[in-house]
Amino acid sequence: MSSVIQDSEVDIVIAAVQPNLTTFFEAWRPFFSRFHIIVVKDPDMTENLQIPTGFDLKVYTKSDIDGVLGATSINFSGHSCRYFGYLVSRKKYVISIDDNCLPAKDTAGSTVDVVAQHIANLKTPATPFFFNTLYDPYRKGADFVRGYPFSLREGVECMLSCGLWLHNADYDPMTHVVKRNQRNTTYVDAVMTVPLGAMLPVSGINVAFNREVLGPAIFPGLRLRKEGKHRWDTLEDVWNGLCAKVVCDSLGYGVKTGLPYVMRSDAEAGKALESLKEWEGVKIMDEVLPFFQSLKLSRTAVTVEDCVKELASIVREKLGPKNAIFTKAADAMVEWNNIWKSHAARDA
Amino acid sequence: MSSVIQDSEVDIVIAAVQPNLTTFFEAWRPFFSRFHIIVVKDPDMTENLQIPTGFDLKVYTKSDIDGVLGATSINFSGHSCRYFGYLVSRKKYVISIDDNCLPAKDTAGSTVDVVAQHIANLKTPATPFFFNTLYDPYRKGADFVRGYPFSLREGVECMLSCGLWLHNADYDPMTHVVKRNQRNTTYVDAVMTVPLGAMLPVSGINVAFNREVLGPAIFPGLRLRKEGKHRWDTLEDVWNGLCAKVVCDSLGYGVKTGLPYVMRSDAEAGKALESLKEWEGVKIMDEVLPFFQSLKLSRTAVTVEDCVKELASIVREKLGPKNAIFTKAADAMVEWNNIWKSHAARDA
Repeated sequence: MSSVIQDSEVDIVIAAVQPNLTTFFEAWRPFFSRFHIIVVKDPDMTENLQIPTGFDLKVYTKSDIDGVLGATSINFSGHSCRYFGYLVSRKKYVISIDDNCLPAKDTAGSTVDVVAQHIANLKTPATPFFFNTLYDPYRKGADFVRGYPFSLREGVECMLSCGLWLHNADYDPMTHVVKRNQRNTTYVDAVMTVPLGAMLPVSGINVAFNREVLGPAIFPGLRLRKEGKHRWDTLEDVWNGLCAKVVCDSLGYGVKTGLPYVMRSDAEAGKALESLKEWEGVKIMDEVLPFFQSLKLSRTAVTVEDCVKELASIVREKLGPKNAIFTKAADAMVEWNNIWKSHAARDA
Repeated sequence: MSSVIQDSEVDIVIAAVQPNLTTFFEAWRPFFSRFHIIVVKDPDMTENLQIPTGFDLKVYTKSDIDGVLGATSINFSGHSCRYFGYLVSRKKYVISIDDNCLPAKDTAGSTVDVVAQHIANLKTPATPFFFNTLYDPYRKGADFVRGYPFSLREGVECMLSCGLWLHNADYDPMTHVVKRNQRNTTYVDAVMTVPLGAMLPVSGINVAFNREVLGPAIFPGLRLRKEGKHRWDTLEDVWNGLCAKVVCDSLGYGVKTGLPYVMRSDAEAGKALESLKEWEGVKIMDEVLPFFQSLKLSRTAVTVEDCVKELASIVREKLGPKNAIFTKAADAMVEWNNIWKSHAARDA
């Protein structure tokens, strides 16, 4: 697979939410060293970053964010700092992995090349209109199962690839507290397209996307009022995933989930109890999902930008009155669209 | 898992489309011998069946079919004979495996207990309203990923469990001819709910369902005009799967796909060329899928029987004019509903 990847079409974007990235980069060196790497430092973090040498790497800090964007209502702190990297990238594809993740091994014991798998997911078609029971039909050794309509076998372009994680699961604070000793050990050897109309909880832990096309729809929109620095505290990626899925569904693009896996450290596991009481996420998703499920963007929205603009306006109208965080999300989405036009498209 | 299965709630139904079932039953003995087995002999087959002793097993033949049903427009020949077994079963759950399938091994080298896995799929809830990226949340070691709405974590009842197959893939004749040497070797260690509204090509190779509830919707409806005895010649199971999925979606039930696997023999592989030229399936699915995707059953259809009746009438009206096989399918669906009421429900 990796033979078809041009170094010039991929950026690796890493959000540095901890200062010492030595272990992280040493572990990923065999897979990342070919590519340009964008590290965005959490603007709230004061410590100096520790990053080993030998990478084609650029670090962006709070002063870069302030310099490029000036006054902005978008909050780039914590895990959300990665989105600034998407904005300054000039590549077709972006891959982003959390800084507490290391390479995983597949069932045969080989170390997973996360870049090769994500790019294969994005470069081969997606099949959102009919579920193939033997999973990705374009995979070596696979095909479309009997009964799969021939008119749909060409597939559509895949815009978003959601990878998975082993070891420390990605739970909300409640589940983390209850299952603090549970680890994900099941390696599911499959990639699949999430069907048209089906929604999924996209996790920012291990993702890749076609930045050139989908970039305007990959933003830090939703921010919980008491949001910490841990994954379980956030819903920014889940919200964004719902937005991106709706946009892809509306424009006839595909979203895949499954391989590649990363190995997620459990350094944080068990600390979720602090977040438990005030976590807004538990209530919010019960309001948000029916909204997204019933959402239909108009046929006149024919670009990703159009769709995001329309989506922001519907969020403002329908969800805004229920909770101020939705109005803020709509503001951020509109602003992201404008920033993307003026910054990300520039020099592209 | 198997500890919760009552022998009295499961029937194994086997369609005998070949006379010698010795290898088949010997291989499945460790898993099937606890349960009552219904063997339905293809009414077109004249040879005597060879079945080893030591099973609680009843064989049904053409004379049983004729005796129970009398004059019927439903064609029970070939793979479709299994449906007669569903009708004479009196159990809550039915499991059906093609007679050219043997037990598979999982990635750890253990032989798969197909009964235990199917019944676990049917007895644990399904989650059709939101896709869980780490697959079945009720599986040991798994849960709902962050962002999964808490209001949906109870799930809904699962009515249909579609198992998979290794080795000889389940392709249409065209793909069989092109890929005659390709074998499926990928064991995907996952069960998932097929999302609400998403359609899949259900294969009859390895299935289980809640007969008590879903029985009226599991029928041999669609029959191609030149249909042979091979899986690649048929679409009866695919058509039925679409009908069953629409009914489950409409009534708020779930459909799962994935584990368990069976090992499919390739004795037939490579013979598909004969079927190639006249196979209607290739055109039919391109008409059928948009029909099912846009279908909405009315809210007043609140039982499986109601839904099948309504579905048959829409098939007759919308698809009937395009091809006589759809009118015949609608006839068979109506008749199945009546037969089910008078025979299957009786003595239940």
